[in-house]
Amino acid sequence: MPPRYPSSRCRLPWLLLLLQALLLARAFFAFPGAPASSSPSELYPVFQDVNHMVIFGFGFFLMVLRRYGFSSTGFNFLLIVLGVQCSVLVQDLLDLLNIQPSEFGIKSLARAVMSMTAVVISTGAVLGKANPVQLIVMSLVELIIFHLSRCINIRVLQVPQNLTLMHVHLFGAYFGLAVTSRFPEAAPGLDKNRSSPKSELFSVLGTVFVWMFWPSFNSLLAESRWQAVLNTYLALAVSAVAAFMLSALTSKDGKFRMAHIHSAVLAGGVTMSSTAQIIQHPWIAMILGLLGSVISILGSHCLQRCFNPPLKLQDTSGVHFTFGLPAVLGAVAAVLLRVVQQGMVEQWSDLPRLGYLTFFEVGAFCQTISTALITGLITGLILNIKLLKAVHVSKYFDDQFYWEVSFQMISD
Amino acid sequence: MPPRYPSSRCRLPWLLLLLQALLLARAFFAFPGAPASSSPSELYPVFQDVNHMVIFGFGFFLMVLRRYGFSSTGFNFLLIVLGVQCSVLVQDLLDLLNIQPSEFGIKSLARAVMSMTAVVISTGAVLGKANPVQLIVMSLVELIIFHLSRCINIRVLQVPQNLTLMHVHLFGAYFGLAVTSRFPEAAPGLDKNRSSPKSELFSVLGTVFVWMFWPSFNSLLAESRWQAVLNTYLALAVSAVAAFMLSALTSKDGKFRMAHIHSAVLAGGVTMSSTAQIIQHPWIAMILGLLGSVISILGSHCLQRCFNPPLKLQDTSGVHFTFGLPAVLGAVAAVLLRVVQQGMVEQWSDLPRLGYLTFFEVGAFCQTISTALITGLITGLILNIKLLKAVHVSKYFDDQFYWEVSFQMISD
Amino acid sequence: MPPRYPSSRCRLPWLLLLLQALLLARAFFAFPGAPASSSPSELYPVFQDVNHMVIFGFGFFLMVLRRYGFSSTGFNFLLIVLGVQCSVLVQDLLDLLNIQPSEFGIKSLARAVMSMTAVVISTGAVLGKANPVQLIVMSLVELIIFHLSRCINIRVLQVPQNLTLMHVHLFGAYFGLAVTSRFPEAAPGLDKNRSSPKSELFSVLGTVFVWMFWPSFNSLLAESRWQAVLNTYLALAVSAVAAFMLSALTSKDGKFRMAHIHSAVLAGGVTMSSTAQIIQHPWIAMILGLLGSVISILGSHCLQRCFNPPLKLQDTSGVHFTFGLPAVLGAVAAVLLRVVQQGMVEQWSDLPRLGYLTFFEVGAFCQTISTALITGLITGLILNIKLLKAVHVSKYFDDQFYWEVSFQMISD
Repeated sequence: MPPRYPSSRCRLPWLLLLLQALLLARAFFAFPGAPASSSPSELYPVFQDVNHMVIFGFGFFLMVLRRYGFSSTGFNFLLIVLGVQCSVLVQDLLDLLNIQPSEFGIKSLARAVMSMTAVVISTGAVLGKANPVQLIVMSLVELIIFHLSRCINIRVLQVPQNLTLMHVHLFGAYFGLAVTSRFPEAAPGLDKNRSSPKSELFSVLGTVFVWMFWPSFNSLLAESRWQAVLNTYLALAVSAVAAFMLSALTSKDGKFRMAHIHSAVLAGGVTMSSTAQIIQHPWIAMILGLLGSVISILGSHCLQRCFNPPLKLQDTSGVHFTFGLPAVLGAVAAVLLRVVQQGMVEQWSDLPRLGYLTFFEVGAFCQTISTALITGLITGLILNIKLLKAVHVSKYFDDQFYWEVSFQMISD
Repeated sequence: MPPRYPSSRCRLPWLLLLLQALLLARAFFAFPGAPASSSPSELYPVFQDVNHMVIFGFGFFLMVLRRYGFSSTGFNFLLIVLGVQCSVLVQDLLDLLNIQPSEFGIKSLARAVMSMTAVVISTGAVLGKANPVQLIVMSLVELIIFHLSRCINIRVLQVPQNLTLMHVHLFGAYFGLAVTSRFPEAAPGLDKNRSSPKSELFSVLGTVFVWMFWPSFNSLLAESRWQAVLNTYLALAVSAVAAFMLSALTSKDGKFRMAHIHSAVLAGGVTMSSTAQIIQHPWIAMILGLLGSVISILGSHCLQRCFNPPLKLQDTSGVHFTFGLPAVLGAVAAVLLRVVQQGMVEQWSDLPRLGYLTFFEVGAFCQTISTALITGLITGLILNIKLLKAVHVSKYFDDQFYWEVSFQMISD
Repeated sequence: MPPRYPSSRCRLPWLLLLLQALLLARAFFAFPGAPASSSPSELYPVFQDVNHMVIFGFGFFLMVLRRYGFSSTGFNFLLIVLGVQCSVLVQDLLDLLNIQPSEFGIKSLARAVMSMTAVVISTGAVLGKANPVQLIVMSLVELIIFHLSRCINIRVLQVPQNLTLMHVHLFGAYFGLAVTSRFPEAAPGLDKNRSSPKSELFSVLGTVFVWMFWPSFNSLLAESRWQAVLNTYLALAVSAVAAFMLSALTSKDGKFRMAHIHSAVLAGGVTMSSTAQIIQHPWIAMILGLLGSVISILGSHCLQRCFNPPLKLQDTSGVHFTFGLPAVLGAVAAVLLRVVQQGMVEQWSDLPRLGYLTFFEVGAFCQTISTALITGLITGLILNIKLLKAVHVSKYFDDQFYWEVSFQMISD
């Protein structure tokens, strides 16, 4: 093993120590009193669901690669436990800037866990290529920028606070794509870049978990919780049916492809994230779920053949079509729905106001996606400077580089 | 591969599209307003438990076959997401016929998920033999008939509405058995018809999930929720102890057999499904759990040796002794308990009334089981017509026939 | 196979039958009326979390050995279903002695499940060495002594009732260590005594579950639930970050070792178990989580090299440094915190009272640990008498000795 690799690994513990010390110091000064003790008790099971979904569900969802099982789950876990603390801190700093009283309770923890979804999705895009130091730097930068972008949406573009968190998939997917475009491409004949049936079965396990907890994710901060739950459930159900339908249609022989199912069953939930709270009629949710699944599977076809090769994009676990495209669809649908609902309430009497509303909604969407792309590109460049000792292409997708694995890999 | 197989697969997407279009159209007309927004908030975690149990637990519980892991989980998932939508629709139509106002809320969704248990259990009986088109047709027919049978029980035999759903295991098991009796038998020397330690470990994972969520299942619609939870928990615990005891007693050398444990630990929950709400004394629940486990393991011995061969029954995952026999026991126990309780309240003064009550209770049980058997046989005949392109016996129990599996199966 | 082994196995069913009959008889006499029906409904999801953690989480957490997957999960399940019933019974007898009305409700069930954690932890120490009969005897003895020790703590040392249960990790770890010291040591060159990547991946799955449900465990019986949840969550997060940090620091090449991560991510939760309810400032919880992780990984280094070999201790799944040392840390921290808090309230005016308080707190801790060690040693001696037919050293760590495994083990 070349001597310069260990040095990257040896830097990791000190980075972790530094960060943890900072977080501890901040906690010492920031939360002088006891944590909030009066949260509504029905919140806790939903919070646990979201926690479960992000840590367990996504951890196993990402376990698609044959020889990368330990790292997929382990690094996801590390990033989340670190990121949740950072996210609480960043929110807290932003509250300070706005001269709001900061309070540490189950709600702020829930928001922190939810905003980690962006990091998890971006991790999926660079899965197997970035070393832990790069991943940690990426997630810190991403978290800070995501919260800033949320702040702009809340302050300048007047998006309600609980809706801004729903841009999390959009932001995560395009940030991750921009970052991964700056990483050197893996050799095309690489064998480790594939899934094995065993790794896919663990991934199915994770996918089913994510699928099941999505209604909790979309309803945790919603005002009309039941509406959000029911709409999300229906959209997820329709998108799962459509996933099987389209997978059989697009593959030869009419066989199902597990990778399609993985992406498309979740597309309904992503599409719903911005709209679950405002949809009044179940059939709209069902149509959006269907469209999410269609856009995800067609996207997977087109992107992998036409779009990714010229751009030299290598999106390891397909976050573009699993989270990116459905999130765009969801955001567009949210703008349309809100304008139509507002229009119907006012009987289309105040068109300038509607245009104004549309402008703000579209603005929030464009601001999020362009911030994600630009800062993602910059982050990708930063991650590949020599200081961070990027992994050599031949060491991609390999647990043995990071873990003391005895002799045999999980998915051989 | 013979040219006539693909055609069956190619038919699947269009069937799914047709069904989903119908469901969408129905949703468009049926639910004009917003979904019910005033469900009690303590219902949601219990609903999630049941959801979890049916989708995740049963999906992995069925993963007993060596080379059928993808299909077990995947098709179970497909059937549930499709079936839940259909079940909501069927309930809604039945409400229309009864000129009741139909309401779409978390309760009707919960009922839909619970009635899917019947389909899941029937799927277990034909596991590995039916192709997805056959499974979908079967589950649609089964759902409609199950809801009709429930309707008869509610209207004609005056069973309380929340108890009718508890016949779901009874109906599912005997419907599945009747269906599977019409399928050609697999060759006796087939190797794929076995479990491997790896597939069994995933199946243990699913079984433990089902076991743990059973108290939620039995208490979701119960009036005295705590009583149902505690009775079910105790019955499950006793049946698990008895499962280990009987497994060691019935196998040679006193070793445990995983297949026994699988079936028998769940027997207590099945037995409790009809009785959890009405049992007043914990020891009755414990005795029923014990009997459920005994009947399940002894049944597995007798059925597999004496009963199935002459009837040419091939019950892949043992639904007869896992769900069928304990459900019969539970139904009989429910009749006895209700009559005794009623008798003790009235101090046995009004014997004709008691006879009348017994007659109705026994009637509901007989109606359910005979409807299941008769319609199951008819469905089995329909499923094997040429139009549905039944799978050839040599292709049974094989993922490769339905999935694009790269090279190696999960359980090799 | 030598003829004396089967006889041990054949004794198991009768032992189970006897125990279950006793439990049934007790249930018949003890609970004359209906179970309590007025438990608060927000308790149920938390109870389910704890149930989940103990049965599923620990069951898979223990699946570290290559060839012991069935037994790890299966015996854990058996011990819990049996132990929960016994624990309810023992609590009930103790209530009788104290002439308190015994009530059977969700709270007493929750207490029973929580006290089973002691047994699960002790099982981890003798994992692979004890046969089921020995395990059952061990868990019964342990449960009875644990409840007696709790009683002494409540009656004599005036520890609040909900805090006594939090000594469960301390008691379980040292009882298990004392028991395992009386078992003959496995041959050093034994191959089965190792983990494989596959078994470790299942173990990761279990660890993540235990990690996630720990806030529920610590808050289930707490008075200030939200405080317990938030403190535990933060401590767990910090200890997970520290686990990765220290694992990279202590291993050569800066690689992570999965076994370290397993132990250390849980250390934070163990440390918090005695203190989660009384910590007022989040940063104290974070520091305790950090210290728990440090003590766990450093302990694992020192113990395995310096401490265990001379004492001939063989702690299969490392319960000493996963549960024992962090629990000691937690107990010491609890004493300090309580004294400081009391001192600050009284402005250090009543020093004799503080000394008195300290004396009682330290007394409860010493009583628990010494009872665990002494009774554990005695139990270890009892378990190795000829009557219980201890497993021969060459049969350690092997599923095939207890299960009808077809041909191949899970983790080969």
